[in-house]
Amino acid sequence: MTATIIDGRKMADALQEQVAAEVRALAVDGIRCGLATVAVGNDYGSRAYVTRIKRITSRLAVPHQAVTLPADSTQEAVRDTIARLNADASVSGVLILRPLPPHLDEAGIFQELSPAKDIEAVHPDNAGLLALGRPRYLPSTPASVFHVLDEWLDAAGEDRADFYHRSLIVVIGRSNNVGKPAVSLAYDRQAAVESIDVWASRSGRLGWHTRRADVLIVAAGVPGLIRSEHIREGAIVLDVGINPLLDPATGRTRTVGDVDFDDVINRARAITPVPGGIGPVTDVWLVRNTVTAARNALTITATEPK
Amino acid sequence: MTATIIDGRKMADALQEQVAAEVRALAVDGIRCGLATVAVGNDYGSRAYVTRIKRITSRLAVPHQAVTLPADSTQEAVRDTIARLNADASVSGVLILRPLPPHLDEAGIFQELSPAKDIEAVHPDNAGLLALGRPRYLPSTPASVFHVLDEWLDAAGEDRADFYHRSLIVVIGRSNNVGKPAVSLAYDRQAAVESIDVWASRSGRLGWHTRRADVLIVAAGVPGLIRSEHIREGAIVLDVGINPLLDPATGRTRTVGDVDFDDVINRARAITPVPGGIGPVTDVWLVRNTVTAARNALTITATEPK
Repeated sequence: MTATIIDGRKMADALQEQVAAEVRALAVDGIRCGLATVAVGNDYGSRAYVTRIKRITSRLAVPHQAVTLPADSTQEAVRDTIARLNADASVSGVLILRPLPPHLDEAGIFQELSPAKDIEAVHPDNAGLLALGRPRYLPSTPASVFHVLDEWLDAAGEDRADFYHRSLIVVIGRSNNVGKPAVSLAYDRQAAVESIDVWASRSGRLGWHTRRADVLIVAAGVPGLIRSEHIREGAIVLDVGINPLLDPATGRTRTVGDVDFDDVINRARAITPVPGGIGPVTDVWLVRNTVTAARNALTITATEPK
Repeated sequence: MTATIIDGRKMADALQEQVAAEVRALAVDGIRCGLATVAVGNDYGSRAYVTRIKRITSRLAVPHQAVTLPADSTQEAVRDTIARLNADASVSGVLILRPLPPHLDEAGIFQELSPAKDIEAVHPDNAGLLALGRPRYLPSTPASVFHVLDEWLDAAGEDRADFYHRSLIVVIGRSNNVGKPAVSLAYDRQAAVESIDVWASRSGRLGWHTRRADVLIVAAGVPGLIRSEHIREGAIVLDVGINPLLDPATGRTRTVGDVDFDDVINRARAITPVPGGIGPVTDVWLVRNTVTAARNALTITATEPK
């Protein structure tokens, strides 16, 4: 079996058209929409992400306010920035880039964010609504994973509900922004779901877990972790990894996933490449949530939990 | 292999001694502590639970305010009760009994509860903190499941961390109050964890999932669902089911679990009985959370999420 390569860029383009229509509808209704990103320090991955966000927001004509704070910023300085963005009517959604420098209390900062503007669901209130099965916002990476999967199943002529009901989804990695919410999204689809962390590898049972997966979602942050012996013939493999890899020959850094693509492609049914898989959809999803937040802003204050 | 029968009543007694000491310490510090239960209508299971709560709170000298509202209560009437309990300084913890009558909006009611008094973590904010790995309160049933497991592992001479790192925990059932938080507690222990729902049975794969479990947590609400062919030799089986069963011979109702105890006992390494397993620990845990809430009340207002 040679896997279908899932074209994330094409799916991102289609999604972008939908979002563009939503942006136009906002303008007709006179509703302001804007994305603010907050980066603290000068992380390589964060910088690359902000560059991508600049591109997509400009393409979709959504105002983007990119705040960069010095790496030695105090907790109070970051909090003040969040407070200013909470109060700024031109900002409907806020993304706080990870990682924050280690001297900062990440959870304390996330908790300062207005839940209405918390489009990545990092505030406990939004994380809770997601865990309870009534999400206010779907965090962009896990949402994009399932968007890609849903769309691919449709294109392959599979009945989505039937597929999920009889499938086991295995999620590698257990971060608050990808692994855990991915499990919640599998709940919502009534699929069986298994979550494994680094101990699956350390205990020598990685393949024992992953070879049962009908769908394997890989968000481990380890380049080339998954090879063909880790998957069953016909699995669908979704690679969330974004790892910088220095090519010693050229001296240039390129991006690789967590999956050994050239190996796994011979055994999987379908696979997302890196780059060009989940990533492009994630960028659009972030803007989509910003648009949703602009609509929510009109009503959410009244229904916000006490 | 014949399984060890885990004595939940003995574990509950030991936990009760700890909680009694905490109650005395509260009194020394002049801190008030009290539990309120809110039942709407006349559900059989809820009534039985409130009777057990009356017994344990009286034994531990913790004031218990048992509110029962008529089955046809309006959303506003329930909300008014919650608001009164939120403001009542003699109440540190509130339990809203399920099920609520179907005409009521359960999520809307849970959201009215002050997070500081929400000892079952049904408010999105507390569900979110639990999902994010920094729980304010552990809901009593899943907390008791893991308390029983932790204690049993200690008694069996197992190293807890080592056991969890190399184990797969399978959770049957995906409710917001048992199944989902049990998955979060497995995350915290860095165990591999799989969550299955009713579709595992409907798709004919129940045993395929459950036979891999080192630990099987059964919270399906289906009497006798798990038999010996569903488990692997040497699994630890924790039965959360509390099902009323009418004995036609005697005309009396008795309580049975989700596990066919007499069958599974020949294949498991350890098993909790029903009654006398998880249940008694849950009752004590609820009071424990009430005590914790009394201590929290002094500081929590200042740190509560905006």
